[in-house]
Amino acid sequence: MERGKALVVFSGGQDSTTCLAKAIKEYGRENVSCITFFYGQRHSLEVEVAKKIAADFGIADHKVIQMDWYNQITTNSLLDPNLEIARAEASKCPNTVVDGRNMLFFTVAAVYAKSRGIRDIITGVCETDFSGYPDCRDVFVKSCNVTLNLAMDTTFRLVTPLMDLTKAETWALADRLGVLEYVEKNTLTCYNGVVGAGCGKCPSCLLRNRGLAEYRQTLKSPLENS
Amino acid sequence: MERGKALVVFSGGQDSTTCLAKAIKEYGRENVSCITFFYGQRHSLEVEVAKKIAADFGIADHKVIQMDWYNQITTNSLLDPNLEIARAEASKCPNTVVDGRNMLFFTVAAVYAKSRGIRDIITGVCETDFSGYPDCRDVFVKSCNVTLNLAMDTTFRLVTPLMDLTKAETWALADRLGVLEYVEKNTLTCYNGVVGAGCGKCPSCLLRNRGLAEYRQTLKSPLENS
Repeated sequence: MERGKALVVFSGGQDSTTCLAKAIKEYGRENVSCITFFYGQRHSLEVEVAKKIAADFGIADHKVIQMDWYNQITTNSLLDPNLEIARAEASKCPNTVVDGRNMLFFTVAAVYAKSRGIRDIITGVCETDFSGYPDCRDVFVKSCNVTLNLAMDTTFRLVTPLMDLTKAETWALADRLGVLEYVEKNTLTCYNGVVGAGCGKCPSCLLRNRGLAEYRQTLKSPLENS
Repeated sequence: MERGKALVVFSGGQDSTTCLAKAIKEYGRENVSCITFFYGQRHSLEVEVAKKIAADFGIADHKVIQMDWYNQITTNSLLDPNLEIARAEASKCPNTVVDGRNMLFFTVAAVYAKSRGIRDIITGVCETDFSGYPDCRDVFVKSCNVTLNLAMDTTFRLVTPLMDLTKAETWALADRLGVLEYVEKNTLTCYNGVVGAGCGKCPSCLLRNRGLAEYRQTLKSPLENS
Protein backbone atom coordinates (compact mmCIF):
# COMPACT_ATOMS: atom_id res chain seq x y z
CA MET A 1 0.00 0.00 0.00
CA GLU A 2 1.71 3.19 -1.18
CA ARG A 3 1.48 6.58 0.49
CA GLY A 4 2.08 8.22 -2.84
CA LYS A 5 -1.06 7.07 -4.64
CA ALA A 6 -4.62 8.29 -4.34
CA LEU A 7 -8.11 7.35 -5.51
CA VAL A 8 -10.60 10.20 -5.97
CA VAL A 9 -14.30 9.42 -5.51
CA PHE A 10 -15.33 11.40 -8.52
CA SER A 11 -18.78 12.60 -9.57
CA GLY A 12 -17.80 15.29 -12.05
CA GLY A 13 -19.26 17.98 -9.80
CA GLN A 14 -17.65 21.13 -8.48
CA ASP A 15 -16.38 19.58 -5.26
CA SER A 16 -14.87 16.37 -6.59
CA THR A 17 -13.33 18.16 -9.58
CA THR A 18 -11.62 20.57 -7.20
CA CYS A 19 -10.43 17.59 -5.17
CA LEU A 20 -9.10 15.98 -8.35
CA ALA A 21 -7.12 19.10 -9.26
CA LYS A 22 -5.71 19.21 -5.73
CA ALA A 23 -4.83 15.49 -5.81
CA ILE A 24 -2.99 15.86 -9.12
CA LYS A 25 -0.95 18.69 -7.65
CA GLU A 26 -0.08 16.76 -4.48
CA TYR A 27 0.37 13.18 -5.72
CA GLY A 28 1.26 13.71 -9.39
CA ARG A 29 -1.10 12.91 -12.26
CA GLU A 30 0.26 9.41 -12.81
CA ASN A 31 -0.44 8.48 -9.19
CA VAL A 32 -4.10 9.53 -9.19
CA SER A 33 -7.01 7.22 -10.06
CA CYS A 34 -10.72 8.08 -10.18
CA ILE A 35 -13.84 6.06 -9.44
CA THR A 36 -17.35 7.12 -10.48
CA PHE A 37 -20.67 5.55 -9.54
CA PHE A 38 -23.71 5.34 -11.74
CA TYR A 39 -26.72 4.55 -9.59
CA GLY A 40 -29.73 5.41 -11.67
CA GLN A 41 -29.64 9.06 -10.62
CA ARG A 42 -31.71 11.57 -12.56
CA HIS A 43 -28.73 13.10 -14.23
CA SER A 44 -27.06 10.02 -15.66
CA LEU A 45 -25.38 12.63 -17.80
CA GLU A 46 -23.19 12.95 -14.71
CA VAL A 47 -21.20 9.88 -15.72
CA GLU A 48 -20.49 11.27 -19.20
CA VAL A 49 -19.40 14.56 -17.65
CA ALA A 50 -17.16 12.71 -15.18
CA LYS A 51 -15.55 10.73 -18.01
CA LYS A 52 -14.86 13.90 -19.98
CA ILE A 53 -13.36 15.75 -17.01
CA ALA A 54 -11.14 12.83 -15.98
CA ALA A 55 -9.91 12.64 -19.59
CA ASP A 56 -9.35 16.43 -19.71
CA PHE A 57 -7.21 16.10 -16.58
CA GLY A 58 -5.24 13.24 -18.14
CA ILE A 59 -6.29 10.52 -15.68
CA ALA A 60 -5.42 7.14 -17.15
CA ASP A 61 -7.22 4.99 -14.57
CA HIS A 62 -10.91 5.91 -14.29
CA LYS A 63 -13.22 3.15 -13.08
CA VAL A 64 -16.99 3.51 -13.59
CA ILE A 65 -19.24 1.28 -11.50
CA GLN A 66 -22.88 0.60 -12.39
CA MET A 67 -25.27 0.27 -9.44
CA ASP A 68 -28.54 0.35 -11.30
CA TRP A 69 -30.26 -1.63 -8.56
CA TYR A 70 -30.03 1.30 -6.14
CA ASN A 71 -33.57 2.46 -6.81
CA GLN A 72 -34.80 -1.07 -6.06
CA ILE A 73 -33.72 -0.79 -2.45
CA THR A 74 -34.60 2.81 -1.60
CA THR A 75 -36.04 5.84 -3.28
CA ASN A 76 -35.88 9.61 -3.25
CA SER A 77 -36.27 12.50 -5.63
CA LEU A 78 -32.86 11.95 -7.29
CA LEU A 79 -33.74 8.37 -8.18
CA ASP A 80 -37.44 8.72 -8.92
CA PRO A 81 -38.38 10.99 -11.83
CA ASN A 82 -41.92 11.27 -10.43
CA LEU A 83 -40.81 13.04 -7.28
CA GLU A 84 -40.15 16.76 -7.35
CA ILE A 85 -36.96 17.94 -5.70
CA ALA A 86 -37.92 19.82 -2.57
CA ARG A 87 -35.87 22.00 -0.29
CA ALA A 88 -35.44 20.65 3.20
CA GLU A 89 -37.74 21.82 5.92
CA ALA A 90 -35.82 22.91 8.99
CA SER A 91 -36.62 19.70 10.84
CA LYS A 92 -36.21 17.20 8.03
CA CYS A 93 -33.71 15.73 5.62
CA PRO A 94 -34.08 17.07 2.10
CA ASN A 95 -35.72 14.51 -0.19
CA THR A 96 -32.55 14.35 -2.26
CA VAL A 97 -30.86 12.19 0.40
CA VAL A 98 -29.91 8.80 -1.02
CA ASP A 99 -29.69 6.56 2.02
CA GLY A 100 -26.29 4.99 2.56
CA ARG A 101 -24.79 6.42 -0.60
CA ASN A 102 -21.44 7.57 0.76
CA MET A 103 -20.91 4.42 2.83
CA LEU A 104 -21.56 2.31 -0.23
CA PHE A 105 -19.29 4.43 -2.43
CA PHE A 106 -16.46 4.50 0.11
CA THR A 107 -16.67 0.73 0.57
CA VAL A 108 -16.47 -0.03 -3.14
CA ALA A 109 -13.78 2.63 -3.58
CA ALA A 110 -11.72 1.03 -0.81
CA VAL A 111 -12.01 -2.45 -2.33
CA TYR A 112 -10.78 -1.03 -5.62
CA ALA A 113 -8.06 1.01 -3.90
CA LYS A 114 -6.76 -2.07 -2.11
CA SER A 115 -6.57 -4.01 -5.36
CA ARG A 116 -4.43 -1.19 -6.82
CA GLY A 117 -2.23 -0.76 -3.75
CA ILE A 118 -3.70 2.68 -3.01
CA ARG A 119 -3.97 3.92 0.57
CA ASP A 120 -5.50 7.41 0.28
CA ILE A 121 -9.15 7.74 -0.78
CA ILE A 122 -10.16 11.33 -1.45
CA THR A 123 -13.74 12.55 -1.21
CA GLY A 124 -15.27 15.99 -1.64
CA VAL A 125 -17.87 15.59 1.11
CA CYS A 126 -18.22 18.57 3.42
CA GLU A 127 -20.27 19.55 6.42
CA THR A 128 -21.24 22.81 4.70
CA ASP A 129 -23.38 20.61 2.48
CA PHE A 130 -24.76 18.85 5.50
CA SER A 131 -28.25 20.31 5.46
CA GLY A 132 -29.52 17.02 6.78
CA TYR A 133 -27.20 14.60 4.95
CA PRO A 134 -25.85 12.43 7.76
CA ASP A 135 -23.21 10.79 5.56
CA CYS A 136 -21.47 14.10 4.85
CA ARG A 137 -20.54 14.58 8.49
CA ASP A 138 -16.95 14.24 9.67
CA VAL A 139 -18.03 11.85 12.43
CA PHE A 140 -19.47 9.49 9.82
CA VAL A 141 -16.38 9.64 7.62
CA LYS A 142 -14.06 8.88 10.56
CA SER A 143 -16.21 5.98 11.71
CA CYS A 144 -16.36 4.63 8.16
CA ASN A 145 -12.57 4.85 7.91
CA VAL A 146 -12.16 2.68 11.02
CA THR A 147 -14.72 0.17 9.76
CA LEU A 148 -13.03 -0.07 6.36
CA ASN A 149 -9.70 -0.76 8.03
CA LEU A 150 -11.24 -3.49 10.17
CA ALA A 151 -13.14 -4.96 7.21
CA MET A 152 -10.02 -5.37 5.10
CA ASP A 153 -7.33 -5.45 7.77
CA THR A 154 -5.54 -2.51 6.20
CA THR A 155 -4.73 1.16 6.68
CA PHE A 156 -6.82 3.27 4.35
CA ARG A 157 -7.09 6.99 4.87
CA LEU A 158 -10.29 8.73 3.89
CA VAL A 159 -9.10 12.22 2.98
CA THR A 160 -11.62 15.09 3.02
CA PRO A 161 -9.99 18.30 1.79
CA LEU A 162 -13.28 20.21 1.70
CA MET A 163 -14.77 19.06 5.00
CA ASP A 164 -14.63 22.45 6.71
CA LEU A 165 -14.78 24.75 3.70
CA THR A 166 -17.72 26.93 2.73
CA LYS A 167 -18.69 26.89 -0.92
CA ALA A 168 -16.95 30.26 -1.35
CA GLU A 169 -13.77 28.75 0.10
CA THR A 170 -14.02 25.79 -2.28
CA TRP A 171 -14.19 28.26 -5.19
CA ALA A 172 -11.16 30.03 -3.73
CA LEU A 173 -9.30 26.71 -3.61
CA ALA A 174 -10.19 26.02 -7.26
CA ASP A 175 -8.87 29.47 -8.11
CA ARG A 176 -5.57 28.85 -6.28
CA LEU A 177 -5.26 25.57 -8.20
CA GLY A 178 -5.82 27.43 -11.48
CA VAL A 179 -9.04 25.59 -12.35
CA LEU A 180 -11.80 28.01 -11.33
CA GLU A 181 -12.88 28.77 -14.87
CA TYR A 182 -12.67 25.11 -15.86
CA VAL A 183 -14.77 24.07 -12.87
CA GLU A 184 -17.32 26.82 -13.51
CA LYS A 185 -17.86 25.84 -17.14
CA ASN A 186 -17.46 22.06 -17.19
CA THR A 187 -18.68 20.51 -13.95
CA LEU A 188 -22.17 19.26 -13.20
CA THR A 189 -23.70 19.93 -9.81
CA CYS A 190 -27.24 20.86 -10.88
CA TYR A 191 -30.01 18.48 -9.80
CA ASN A 192 -31.70 19.19 -13.12
CA GLY A 193 -28.67 18.08 -15.14
CA VAL A 194 -27.54 21.42 -16.60
CA VAL A 195 -23.72 21.52 -16.96
CA GLY A 196 -21.78 24.63 -15.91
CA ALA A 197 -23.92 27.41 -14.49
CA GLY A 198 -26.82 24.96 -13.99
CA CYS A 199 -30.57 25.59 -13.89
CA GLY A 200 -29.95 28.26 -11.27
CA LYS A 201 -32.99 27.22 -9.25
CA CYS A 202 -32.40 23.84 -7.56
CA PRO A 203 -30.88 23.78 -4.05
CA SER A 204 -27.54 22.65 -5.44
CA CYS A 205 -27.36 25.53 -7.96
CA LEU A 206 -28.33 28.05 -5.31
CA LEU A 207 -25.53 26.83 -3.03
CA ARG A 208 -22.97 26.77 -5.83
CA ASN A 209 -23.85 30.16 -7.33
CA ARG A 210 -24.14 31.88 -3.98
CA GLY A 211 -20.67 30.58 -3.09
CA LEU A 212 -19.18 31.82 -6.34
CA ALA A 213 -20.74 35.26 -5.95
CA GLU A 214 -19.46 35.41 -2.39
CA TYR A 215 -15.93 34.45 -3.47
CA ARG A 216 -15.93 37.00 -6.31
CA GLN A 217 -17.02 39.65 -3.84
CA THR A 218 -13.88 38.98 -1.77
CA LEU A 219 -11.73 39.60 -4.87
CA LYS A 220 -12.91 43.18 -5.25
CA SER A 221 -10.66 45.90 -3.87
CA PRO A 222 -11.61 47.40 -0.51
CA LEU A 223 -12.55 50.58 -2.39
CA GLU A 224 -15.03 48.71 -4.62
CA ASN A 225 -16.42 46.83 -1.65
CA SER A 226 -17.25 49.97 0.27
CA MET B 1 -38.46 1.41 12.55
CA GLU B 2 -40.05 -1.66 14.13
CA ARG B 3 -38.42 -3.92 16.68
CA GLY B 4 -40.53 -6.79 15.48
CA LYS B 5 -39.16 -7.06 11.93
CA ALA B 6 -35.91 -8.53 10.67
CA LEU B 7 -33.90 -8.79 7.47
CA VAL B 8 -31.70 -11.87 7.05
CA VAL B 9 -28.56 -11.53 4.91
CA PHE B 10 -29.12 -14.80 3.16
CA SER B 11 -26.75 -16.84 1.02
CA GLY B 12 -28.53 -20.18 1.07
CA GLY B 13 -25.66 -21.75 3.02
CA GLN B 14 -25.74 -23.66 6.28
CA ASP B 15 -25.19 -20.65 8.51
CA SER B 16 -27.66 -18.21 7.00
CA THR B 17 -30.32 -20.90 6.62
CA THR B 18 -29.98 -21.69 10.32
CA CYS B 19 -30.25 -17.95 11.03
CA LEU B 20 -33.38 -17.79 8.87
CA ALA B 21 -35.03 -20.64 10.78
CA LYS B 22 -34.16 -18.91 14.06
CA ALA B 23 -35.48 -15.56 12.82
CA ILE B 24 -38.79 -17.11 11.75
CA LYS B 25 -39.17 -18.64 15.19
CA GLU B 26 -38.40 -15.38 16.98
CA TYR B 27 -40.00 -12.72 14.76
CA GLY B 28 -42.72 -14.72 12.97
CA ARG B 29 -42.56 -15.69 9.31
CA GLU B 30 -44.51 -12.63 8.11
CA ASN B 31 -42.02 -10.28 9.80
CA VAL B 32 -38.90 -11.75 8.20
CA SER B 33 -37.38 -10.56 4.91
CA CYS B 34 -34.31 -11.93 3.11
CA ILE B 35 -31.68 -10.29 0.94
CA THR B 36 -29.25 -12.23 -1.28
CA PHE B 37 -26.28 -10.91 -3.23
CA PHE B 38 -25.08 -12.18 -6.55
CA TYR B 39 -21.56 -10.97 -7.14
CA GLY B 40 -20.17 -13.13 -9.88
CA GLN B 41 -19.10 -15.83 -7.47
CA ARG B 42 -18.14 -19.23 -8.83
CA HIS B 43 -21.24 -20.90 -7.59
CA SER B 44 -23.90 -18.59 -9.03
CA LEU B 45 -26.09 -21.59 -8.38
CA GLU B 46 -26.05 -20.14 -4.85
CA VAL B 47 -28.70 -17.61 -5.82
CA GLU B 48 -31.03 -20.31 -7.16
CA VAL B 49 -30.52 -22.32 -4.00
CA ALA B 50 -31.23 -19.23 -1.87
CA LYS B 51 -34.45 -18.54 -3.79
CA LYS B 52 -35.64 -22.12 -3.33
CA ILE B 53 -34.88 -22.18 0.40
CA ALA B 54 -36.53 -18.79 1.04
CA ALA B 55 -39.60 -20.08 -0.82
CA ASP B 56 -39.54 -23.38 1.12
CA PHE B 57 -39.55 -21.35 4.33
CA GLY B 58 -42.48 -19.25 3.08
CA ILE B 59 -40.65 -15.90 2.95
CA ALA B 60 -42.69 -13.46 0.89
CA ASP B 61 -40.10 -10.68 0.68
CA HIS B 62 -36.81 -11.92 -0.80
CA LYS B 63 -34.68 -9.30 -2.53
CA VAL B 64 -31.86 -10.40 -4.85
CA ILE B 65 -29.19 -7.83 -5.69
CA GLN B 66 -26.87 -8.19 -8.68
CA MET B 67 -23.32 -6.93 -8.16
CA ASP B 68 -21.72 -8.33 -11.26
CA TRP B 69 -19.07 -5.61 -11.23
CA TYR B 70 -17.45 -7.07 -8.13
CA ASN B 71 -14.78 -8.93 -10.06
CA GLN B 72 -13.89 -5.67 -11.84
CA ILE B 73 -12.67 -4.12 -8.60
CA THR B 74 -10.94 -7.02 -6.89
CA THR B 75 -10.27 -10.66 -7.48
CA ASN B 76 -9.82 -13.94 -5.65
CA SER B 77 -10.40 -17.60 -6.21
CA LEU B 78 -14.18 -17.36 -5.68
CA LEU B 79 -14.55 -14.74 -8.40
CA ASP B 80 -11.92 -15.94 -10.85
CA PRO B 81 -12.46 -19.40 -12.35
CA ASN B 82 -8.77 -19.54 -13.30
CA LEU B 83 -7.60 -19.51 -9.69
CA GLU B 84 -7.60 -22.68 -7.70
CA ILE B 85 -9.06 -22.52 -4.22
CA ALA B 86 -6.22 -22.92 -1.76
CA ARG B 87 -6.23 -23.50 1.96
CA ALA B 88 -4.82 -20.67 3.99
CA GLU B 89 -1.26 -20.80 5.13
CA ALA B 90 -0.96 -20.07 8.82
CA SER B 91 0.27 -16.56 8.20
CA LYS B 92 -2.00 -15.55 5.34
CA CYS B 93 -5.63 -14.95 4.43
CA PRO B 94 -7.10 -17.78 2.38
CA ASN B 95 -7.44 -16.81 -1.28
CA THR B 96 -11.22 -17.14 -0.97
CA VAL B 97 -11.41 -13.79 0.86
CA VAL B 98 -13.50 -11.31 -1.13
CA ASP B 99 -12.27 -7.94 0.08
CA GLY B 100 -14.96 -5.79 1.66
CA ARG B 101 -17.75 -8.26 0.97
CA ASN B 102 -19.51 -8.15 4.33
CA MET B 103 -19.25 -4.38 4.63
CA LEU B 104 -20.78 -4.00 1.19
CA PHE B 105 -23.53 -6.51 1.93
CA PHE B 106 -24.39 -5.00 5.32
CA THR B 107 -24.53 -1.50 3.80
CA VAL B 108 -26.90 -2.50 1.02
CA ALA B 109 -28.93 -4.62 3.43
CA ALA B 110 -29.27 -1.64 5.79
CA VAL B 111 -30.43 0.68 3.00
CA TYR B 112 -33.07 -1.87 2.07
CA ALA B 113 -34.00 -2.47 5.72
CA LYS B 114 -34.50 1.24 6.31
CA SER B 115 -36.79 1.51 3.30
CA ARG B 116 -38.93 -1.30 4.78
CA GLY B 117 -38.90 0.03 8.35
CA ILE B 118 -36.76 -2.88 9.57
CA ARG B 119 -34.31 -2.39 12.44
CA ASP B 120 -32.73 -5.81 12.96
CA ILE B 121 -30.32 -7.13 10.33
CA ILE B 122 -29.33 -10.74 10.92
CA THR B 123 -26.11 -12.24 9.60
CA GLY B 124 -24.59 -15.69 10.00
CA VAL B 125 -20.98 -14.49 10.25
CA CYS B 126 -18.95 -16.11 13.00
CA GLU B 127 -15.44 -15.95 14.32
CA THR B 128 -15.13 -19.73 14.04
CA ASP B 129 -15.01 -19.09 10.32
CA PHE B 130 -12.43 -16.38 10.83
CA SER B 131 -9.40 -18.26 9.50
CA GLY B 132 -8.12 -14.95 8.20
CA TYR B 133 -11.40 -13.30 7.13
CA PRO B 134 -11.24 -9.92 8.86
CA ASP B 135 -14.86 -9.08 8.11
CA CYS B 136 -16.18 -12.03 10.09
CA ARG B 137 -14.80 -10.65 13.34
CA ASP B 138 -17.08 -9.30 16.02
CA VAL B 139 -15.02 -6.10 16.25
CA PHE B 140 -15.69 -5.41 12.56
CA VAL B 141 -19.42 -6.09 12.87
CA LYS B 142 -19.75 -3.73 15.85
CA SER B 143 -17.80 -0.98 14.12
CA CYS B 144 -19.90 -1.44 10.99
CA ASN B 145 -23.07 -1.17 13.06
CA VAL B 146 -21.98 2.21 14.44
CA THR B 147 -20.99 3.45 10.98
CA LEU B 148 -24.32 2.37 9.49
CA ASN B 149 -26.19 4.24 12.20
CA LEU B 150 -24.14 7.38 11.57
CA ALA B 151 -24.50 7.04 7.80
CA MET B 152 -28.28 6.92 7.91
CA ASP B 153 -28.97 8.59 11.25
CA THR B 154 -30.85 5.59 12.50
CA THR B 155 -30.68 2.68 14.97
CA PHE B 156 -29.99 -0.53 13.13
CA ARG B 157 -28.91 -3.60 15.04
CA LEU B 158 -26.60 -6.06 13.34
CA VAL B 159 -27.54 -9.35 14.97
CA THR B 160 -25.04 -12.24 14.87
CA PRO B 161 -26.58 -15.37 16.39
CA LEU B 162 -23.65 -17.59 15.33
CA MET B 163 -20.76 -15.30 16.24
CA ASP B 164 -19.39 -17.47 19.02
CA LEU B 165 -20.60 -20.88 17.92
CA THR B 166 -18.45 -23.68 16.57
CA LYS B 167 -19.75 -25.44 13.48
CA ALA B 168 -20.88 -28.33 15.71
CA GLU B 169 -22.87 -25.86 17.83
CA THR B 170 -24.47 -24.39 14.70
CA TRP B 171 -25.59 -27.90 13.72
CA ALA B 172 -26.95 -28.33 17.26
CA LEU B 173 -28.91 -25.08 16.87
CA ALA B 174 -30.35 -26.27 13.55
CA ASP B 175 -31.37 -29.48 15.29
CA ARG B 176 -33.11 -27.61 18.13
CA LEU B 177 -34.95 -25.56 15.50
CA GLY B 178 -36.06 -28.76 13.77
CA VAL B 179 -34.22 -28.04 10.51
CA LEU B 180 -31.04 -30.11 10.75
CA GLU B 181 -32.06 -32.55 8.05
CA TYR B 182 -33.36 -29.75 5.81
CA VAL B 183 -30.10 -27.80 6.22
CA GLU B 184 -28.01 -30.90 5.60
CA LYS B 185 -29.77 -31.76 2.34
CA ASN B 186 -30.69 -28.40 0.82
CA THR B 187 -28.10 -25.77 1.64
CA LEU B 188 -25.04 -24.86 -0.38
CA THR B 189 -21.78 -24.13 1.38
CA CYS B 190 -19.38 -25.97 -0.91
CA TYR B 191 -16.89 -23.80 -2.84
CA ASN B 192 -17.31 -26.18 -5.75
CA GLY B 193 -21.06 -25.68 -5.94
CA VAL B 194 -22.30 -29.09 -4.78
CA VAL B 195 -25.58 -28.79 -2.83
CA GLY B 196 -26.06 -30.73 0.39
CA ALA B 197 -23.10 -32.86 1.41
CA GLY B 198 -20.85 -30.91 -0.99
CA CYS B 199 -17.66 -31.99 -2.74
CA GLY B 200 -16.29 -33.03 0.62
CA LYS B 201 -12.84 -31.67 -0.20
CA CYS B 202 -12.87 -27.85 -0.22
CA PRO B 203 -12.11 -25.97 3.04
CA SER B 204 -15.78 -25.10 3.45
CA CYS B 205 -16.92 -28.73 3.13
CA LEU B 206 -14.25 -29.90 5.55
CA LEU B 207 -15.41 -27.37 8.15
CA ARG B 208 -19.07 -28.22 7.63
CA ASN B 209 -18.69 -31.99 7.64
CA ARG B 210 -16.31 -32.03 10.58
CA GLY B 211 -18.81 -29.93 12.54
CA LEU B 212 -21.66 -32.29 11.73
CA ALA B 213 -19.65 -35.36 12.67
CA GLU B 214 -18.65 -33.69 15.92
CA TYR B 215 -22.26 -32.81 16.74
CA ARG B 216 -23.47 -36.34 15.94
CA GLN B 217 -20.78 -37.70 18.24
CA THR B 218 -22.26 -35.69 21.13
CA LEU B 219 -25.65 -37.31 20.51
CA LYS B 220 -24.35 -40.75 21.22
CA SER B 221 -24.97 -42.17 24.67
CA PRO B 222 -22.06 -42.05 27.11
CA LEU B 223 -21.87 -45.81 26.76
CA GLU B 224 -21.39 -45.60 22.99
CA ASN B 225 -18.89 -42.80 23.37
CA SER B 226 -16.70 -44.73 25.72
